[in-house]
Amino acid sequence: MPYAVSPLAPKTWPDMPPVPGVTIATAEAGIRYKGRTDVLYAGLAAGTETAGVFTRSKCPSAPVEWCRANLARGGARALVVNSGNANAFTGLKGSAAVAQTAEIASRAAGCAPHEVFLASTGVIGEPLDASKFEAVLANCAANAVPDAWEASARAIMTTDTFPKYATRTATIEGVEVVINGIAKGSGMIAPDMATMLAFVFTDAPIAQPALQTLLTRATATSFNCVTVDGDTSTSDTLMLFATGAAAERGAPRIEAADDPRLAGFAAALQDLLDELAIWVARDGEGARKFVTVRVNGATSDASAHRIAMSIANSPLVKTAIAGEDANWGRVVMAVGKAGEPADRDRLAISFGDIRVAVNGARDPDYDEAAASAYMSREDIDLTVDLGLGDGAARVWTCDLTKTYIEINGDYRS
Amino acid sequence: MPYAVSPLAPKTWPDMPPVPGVTIATAEAGIRYKGRTDVLYAGLAAGTETAGVFTRSKCPSAPVEWCRANLARGGARALVVNSGNANAFTGLKGSAAVAQTAEIASRAAGCAPHEVFLASTGVIGEPLDASKFEAVLANCAANAVPDAWEASARAIMTTDTFPKYATRTATIEGVEVVINGIAKGSGMIAPDMATMLAFVFTDAPIAQPALQTLLTRATATSFNCVTVDGDTSTSDTLMLFATGAAAERGAPRIEAADDPRLAGFAAALQDLLDELAIWVARDGEGARKFVTVRVNGATSDASAHRIAMSIANSPLVKTAIAGEDANWGRVVMAVGKAGEPADRDRLAISFGDIRVAVNGARDPDYDEAAASAYMSREDIDLTVDLGLGDGAARVWTCDLTKTYIEINGDYRS
Repeated sequence: MPYAVSPLAPKTWPDMPPVPGVTIATAEAGIRYKGRTDVLYAGLAAGTETAGVFTRSKCPSAPVEWCRANLARGGARALVVNSGNANAFTGLKGSAAVAQTAEIASRAAGCAPHEVFLASTGVIGEPLDASKFEAVLANCAANAVPDAWEASARAIMTTDTFPKYATRTATIEGVEVVINGIAKGSGMIAPDMATMLAFVFTDAPIAQPALQTLLTRATATSFNCVTVDGDTSTSDTLMLFATGAAAERGAPRIEAADDPRLAGFAAALQDLLDELAIWVARDGEGARKFVTVRVNGATSDASAHRIAMSIANSPLVKTAIAGEDANWGRVVMAVGKAGEPADRDRLAISFGDIRVAVNGARDPDYDEAAASAYMSREDIDLTVDLGLGDGAARVWTCDLTKTYIEINGDYRS
Repeated sequence: MPYAVSPLAPKTWPDMPPVPGVTIATAEAGIRYKGRTDVLYAGLAAGTETAGVFTRSKCPSAPVEWCRANLARGGARALVVNSGNANAFTGLKGSAAVAQTAEIASRAAGCAPHEVFLASTGVIGEPLDASKFEAVLANCAANAVPDAWEASARAIMTTDTFPKYATRTATIEGVEVVINGIAKGSGMIAPDMATMLAFVFTDAPIAQPALQTLLTRATATSFNCVTVDGDTSTSDTLMLFATGAAAERGAPRIEAADDPRLAGFAAALQDLLDELAIWVARDGEGARKFVTVRVNGATSDASAHRIAMSIANSPLVKTAIAGEDANWGRVVMAVGKAGEPADRDRLAISFGDIRVAVNGARDPDYDEAAASAYMSREDIDLTVDLGLGDGAARVWTCDLTKTYIEINGDYRS
């Protein structure tokens, strides 16, 4: 890693329990990096159900197209993820590399190619030499173990400065189930483009349509509420694998997302995705501050979300936060440019508990010293109240520092 | 100015002729700066027609609201612009300051307050002390001269690194008319927000509705095609004043924007606005490269424009250009995230004449050395062909460098 570990990295790391039905191995295939793992293999028990959420890019990577197509066929027996090459914008060669990888993995796992799910992250536009998987996947399948979670998170890092993993438990009719997740955040390596990848595994027995509904819902308020630089990857992939192994311990198989017996699971899943999404923002390129933007009083939740994203993506707001400046003028600017209903003279803006503006002007009680002290913190809460309705949203981002420019622009100089 | 003159500044400066019916003065009102002019006064002959285009922000500044309201009443006798304070997000005090400024100016100019147009740029959220105009505007009106164009452009600078002004001529039925314009670009000063201001003056006799139509049309492909950081100001103002003084030299008064006798004027106006818009991009904060993004082959011009803006606002594309990296992968990403129709496998991307990608993959003839040589240039042309239709657009921007972060984030450190 060319950059030091983010100051916003976790201070403690979770112990990751096994997920019955899931085994993991990592390998060094030499796709691009030397001396580090770049392949993650996850073996999945027969009967594993799968849900996925993918990039909305109109130019998705070949692995994204593969996963989308195979999700509809049902069943998953293996997941193969590589770092070092995104296999994106690689034309017909990209599709061929995906098919070849799935074929190699299916032989290793003893399943059909369409039961293999794939993701790639790293260089864009370079053909991926899928033959490199030949040397490692059979060995991965033979030696996969239940407890290699930290290693799995490390194998998919690009310029992430720390591995991202989290765990939760929930009970379904009194039976405890496990949910483990790993993610990689917004890192780049020259001349590459970041991808956001996250994989979640559970032993809960949940039918695919319900699983997909739960994942889509939980994504809306977690990963879809994170932004580092507003640039959407061609490869964003979030998949949830449910092995159903908890059925052996008496957990009922559940068919409907709204079944009340899933309430605890849904909450735990949301909590897990929130944590992983927060780690992605906290490892945003060059980040020195973690920022939670809340918008209240909008005409709808969707309107609040668009305004919150306008604030969180504004380079002027983000550089002000980097400069530890409670610059609410730039927040007003970002509200105004969002194109959503807003009334300048009803706006109120707070940093933490410090209200800096109210009724469309500086708060008469504004205390510059208190605001400056607050802005020196590592975690910044920025709240805008529009005073128009009940719409609300919350998004996470980070500040914009010179290190972001160094990571993404300086490598040729 | 805390920053050195942009390397993209003009190498030569135009001689600005007088515009009959327009006189100019500048003054030091001490609104925020010391030792420099911060007020521009332009006196306008009786009968001057006015057109304006303003920020689309939902939170516009008080002067923007003033100009919008008075544009409908017709007639302009004076323009007053100050730097140092944007009078934005100042609540009721902002409206009061605008009314007071117009009242002072109307006494100086001998006209009604609604015939005074106003713009302010600088600090946001600070009340503007309009009484400071009392000391300078009468003197400005008494001593305004026809040839203070460079001084006028300097008086409205904030962190612009050079003054922006341009001139054109056109003929209307054989009579030559003048069009002069000044602008200020995207500069910031702590803790302020940039505003884009531009003012254009002509002696052509053109009725207000036609003038507004011409201005709106020419703006669509000039100022509305410039982006530095995607952050829309609360104060953006572009106004066109037509004194009609050329009628004394035999120019006919023209009522309709589509009158063929205005073809030359419309072309000259477009050319002038293009030049001013380009200077704004060339003085973008921290800019070291000027970038022209062209998108062809889209399903419509509007779709092409949205894709071009997605590219021009992408921090990853802009940092790659700063790093002199022909990173077409990031261009693909920006095309994909725009949400507009695109077919990855038909995309072609060129830097200058060097085609780097075709049919959704790297160009087989791609020459890394030639691309690197091209990227070291000061002016970069980036062209994307979508291969879908006839829609086309062109936008201007600049690269994203560490100096942008310094200007906007480092002032507290």
